[in-house]
Amino acid sequence: MDPMQPTSPKPGSPQPGLMMDFPLTVQHVLRRMEGIWGGKKVVTLIDPDTGGCAERSFGEVVARAGQLAHALQRLGVRPGDRVGSLAWNNVQHLEVYLAVMSMGAVLHTMNLRLHGDQLAYTIDHAEDVVVLVESSLAGQFAAVLPDVESVREVIVIDDLSRSAPELPSALDYETLLKREDANFDWPLFDERSAAALCYTSGTTGDPKGVLYSHRSIILHALAMSGADVYGITSRDRVLALVPLFHAMGWGLPFVCGLVGSDIVMPGRHLKPGPLARVIEGQRTTWSAGVPTLWLDLLQYMDAAADEGRSHDLSSLKTILCGGTAVAESLITEYKTRFDADVIEGWGMTEIFPGATVDRESMNSAQTGESMRRKTAGRMSPLYELRLVDVDGAVLPNDGVAVGDVEVRGPSVASGYFKSDAATAAAIHDGWLRTGDVGTVDSTGHLRITDRAKDVIKSGGEWISSQDLEVELLAHPAVREAAVIGVADQRWGERPLAFVVLGAPATEPELREFLVDRVARWWVPERFEIVDQIPRTTTGKFDKKILRRQFEARP
Amino acid sequence: MDPMQPTSPKPGSPQPGLMMDFPLTVQHVLRRMEGIWGGKKVVTLIDPDTGGCAERSFGEVVARAGQLAHALQRLGVRPGDRVGSLAWNNVQHLEVYLAVMSMGAVLHTMNLRLHGDQLAYTIDHAEDVVVLVESSLAGQFAAVLPDVESVREVIVIDDLSRSAPELPSALDYETLLKREDANFDWPLFDERSAAALCYTSGTTGDPKGVLYSHRSIILHALAMSGADVYGITSRDRVLALVPLFHAMGWGLPFVCGLVGSDIVMPGRHLKPGPLARVIEGQRTTWSAGVPTLWLDLLQYMDAAADEGRSHDLSSLKTILCGGTAVAESLITEYKTRFDADVIEGWGMTEIFPGATVDRESMNSAQTGESMRRKTAGRMSPLYELRLVDVDGAVLPNDGVAVGDVEVRGPSVASGYFKSDAATAAAIHDGWLRTGDVGTVDSTGHLRITDRAKDVIKSGGEWISSQDLEVELLAHPAVREAAVIGVADQRWGERPLAFVVLGAPATEPELREFLVDRVARWWVPERFEIVDQIPRTTTGKFDKKILRRQFEARP
Repeated sequence: MDPMQPTSPKPGSPQPGLMMDFPLTVQHVLRRMEGIWGGKKVVTLIDPDTGGCAERSFGEVVARAGQLAHALQRLGVRPGDRVGSLAWNNVQHLEVYLAVMSMGAVLHTMNLRLHGDQLAYTIDHAEDVVVLVESSLAGQFAAVLPDVESVREVIVIDDLSRSAPELPSALDYETLLKREDANFDWPLFDERSAAALCYTSGTTGDPKGVLYSHRSIILHALAMSGADVYGITSRDRVLALVPLFHAMGWGLPFVCGLVGSDIVMPGRHLKPGPLARVIEGQRTTWSAGVPTLWLDLLQYMDAAADEGRSHDLSSLKTILCGGTAVAESLITEYKTRFDADVIEGWGMTEIFPGATVDRESMNSAQTGESMRRKTAGRMSPLYELRLVDVDGAVLPNDGVAVGDVEVRGPSVASGYFKSDAATAAAIHDGWLRTGDVGTVDSTGHLRITDRAKDVIKSGGEWISSQDLEVELLAHPAVREAAVIGVADQRWGERPLAFVVLGAPATEPELREFLVDRVARWWVPERFEIVDQIPRTTTGKFDKKILRRQFEARP
Repeated sequence: MDPMQPTSPKPGSPQPGLMMDFPLTVQHVLRRMEGIWGGKKVVTLIDPDTGGCAERSFGEVVARAGQLAHALQRLGVRPGDRVGSLAWNNVQHLEVYLAVMSMGAVLHTMNLRLHGDQLAYTIDHAEDVVVLVESSLAGQFAAVLPDVESVREVIVIDDLSRSAPELPSALDYETLLKREDANFDWPLFDERSAAALCYTSGTTGDPKGVLYSHRSIILHALAMSGADVYGITSRDRVLALVPLFHAMGWGLPFVCGLVGSDIVMPGRHLKPGPLARVIEGQRTTWSAGVPTLWLDLLQYMDAAADEGRSHDLSSLKTILCGGTAVAESLITEYKTRFDADVIEGWGMTEIFPGATVDRESMNSAQTGESMRRKTAGRMSPLYELRLVDVDGAVLPNDGVAVGDVEVRGPSVASGYFKSDAATAAAIHDGWLRTGDVGTVDSTGHLRITDRAKDVIKSGGEWISSQDLEVELLAHPAVREAAVIGVADQRWGERPLAFVVLGAPATEPELREFLVDRVARWWVPERFEIVDQIPRTTTGKFDKKILRRQFEARP
């Protein structure tokens, strides 16, 4: 079917339209960054103590991406080859994004929080031929390098233009770029070509690779740029807290490149002090990240106020949260103190973030309505959700039926890289099983009640661990809460709540608090007041470890 | 390339990503309208004197689209067949949109302002097998029906459920729907399949058909839903003034269906009185249409105020204008009186509207800055623009070089339906020649100086007729202005200005006014004060007629 060729209509079968066959690739973002938004800035936090930053324009970034593409080509990187990156969020990582994908190679964004053996596994599985490593992570990478086979060259990224001593034979990023031309003749390829590879750190088995196509990245970025979705404009300054190695940094590099907003990169300085300084100094308006960071920032601001210091965070307008449930108090605190809207999103590596986005809680905060029916948001454009029961039968989207959430769309994985078994387990009748359990209502709002593996079945009925966590978080003294199911002779399972307190509270007080908010039989008999709750490499509560800790007890 | 199949990487060539092969078709909009936005409304103005409206929910509209698809299938309409519509903007026309495209047939939206012989030409050329006609247009259609061959059935749309006497053998829309089931098994087809056919009424030769694909429609709607583009949200109520037969109603049916905003349809009542009543009664927030309508509305409001009547138009937030240059006074008047932002867009049937959108003038109005450098807007996502000289050589996008504007993107026509000659003339090296002349600057802003055919060449230099028109419109007494080039023995050509006055002004006054605003040699020697300026079927000034009138003079 060649759309350039005017065809005679064939009755009884669809005919192609006569529109240009323009591929949706990252090169379009690159051209916008160069041709329209050349003056926009990528800002990288350099000094966490002062908030001092380094700036580079989009125009410079694209020129340097061209130089990098030449350098990689000279090192033998060809279209389809995997190139790894091990780095925090900084301008060089964005250059690597643009160069590798636009030259037709595949960027494997490594999760720097993976254990050494898992990191080595993903490098081997991806067959990375070249890896770019930030100098602060050189030691971590040097430890796994002897265990991997495919890597031919290592390039160290360092602002000080010195190679890392841990990687003596590595090449230096700046030295490589310096001798190359900025103009690269980006090749034409199909929009369905692979652009990036991201491994999910599942709770069981080996990491599984999601192989994003150019098409899926551009369509996700377009859908997210909607006024009701991310809602980012060219007047925004976006603070990209979510790591670039986590589901394409929630698509922010591409959204910002398309719509022309400045991007502020925090580097490895994800502590509340540096964040407060960079928000104040750079007047960032929009940000995305896990709720914990925003909670930490609130507490930091309180402590600073007690010491007579303050930071002006009034530039903040929108904060997109995801990963775990967002406490109502977080939403109201940010609204009250900074007039910032905390909106909630839902997604996963396999489907990108933002598959649902909740602007209702934002509206509720504005109108003062209760948020007790808060959801994970409404299906974004290009995402379709359905529920199925244990037999795979489709349940109604009526807000009542609880089932396994399945999703489909052009930015949803159709399988895992080189893993037929994982693919077969993930795909059901053309839809992806998300592993989440919940309801969808007739207005497209998803309400997650649990991860499928975290469901608590008590006396034949389901208890939602997530609902219990959200209600516990509503208590002013509760800072974090994680609920798991534990074996019970009488009921099969009963909930057990792990709680981190920010202020004094007793178990009976917490129990009493819940009685007013959930069904009486949901209220846990047991609470564990702990100093912290273990987290996975992506910052979520690690309930597997909690269960193991509980089972290991005498 | 089957993205469902995990492939082993082939070094040296791009490999497909592993993402779902989800086609971008109008069916996705249909499913969102049904599954998420079922409670949203399509409102049709019924009584122009009172502003009385009829409402139908998105859910009902989708159900009726299902019934219509069954009826059309029963009448023998098969995928790929062309189905014509001749109607104003109302809920039934939207049902026709959704049904015809989602069943895989091709909707030919007829321009009801075409002369009879041109209308007959497009029906024959499109080979429409079924035509749906609004009863108020039955007479117009009955006059051409004897001259066309392909039409097997005519269906009359009428809210009163009676057939039109002018079309005695026509079927009745409501009767057909009543006996059909609402559930239609929409077929799966490629996103590049044709969805709609729209003829451009060129100033020379036969009308040319633009054959939109599903993909182009969905990508356009996604790009337009951006916060910096149309910026429509689910909280908006959109008044769709631009006809559904004009470049897919600027994509509004699809944008509103995707993002879930109510749609208000004015029917055939495009006069300022009914519009004021419907804006006031329906509290519409967003609208799109040609500037003339908005100018008329202002004058109506003034006249009404003189008579002691008023309408509350405070719900208006955004007005998208296109088709011709927008006077600065229109922007400031709407900002001052109604706090509404008038934003300007540029496009054409071949590329959809909104290829560029100007939010700078909006910002200028807010800040009080001069808009003397007002542009047609900045390239929207998925649109790429370049300039070429008379030899086809590419000129820089530096804001200085003036050239022929060419555009490319996935929502840009690659040719004309069944017309190799017109296609060959339109496509240059993979880009579409727009026929507009202007500059593009380094921030992606397009500034149109002329239609290529309207360019005035005087003493070897170009004079921009559009710049002269914009400057004349800045004069408080000037209501409309059209400038053409006329032959001049000494200079080759000289500008001649046709002006419609809204208040007294003399030729010397206008000349003096221009002297301060444009190069002295641009100032026309001749002005014609006229009662009205002839317009094309799409509402633009018809300079061909102006030139003919001038040449025909003794």
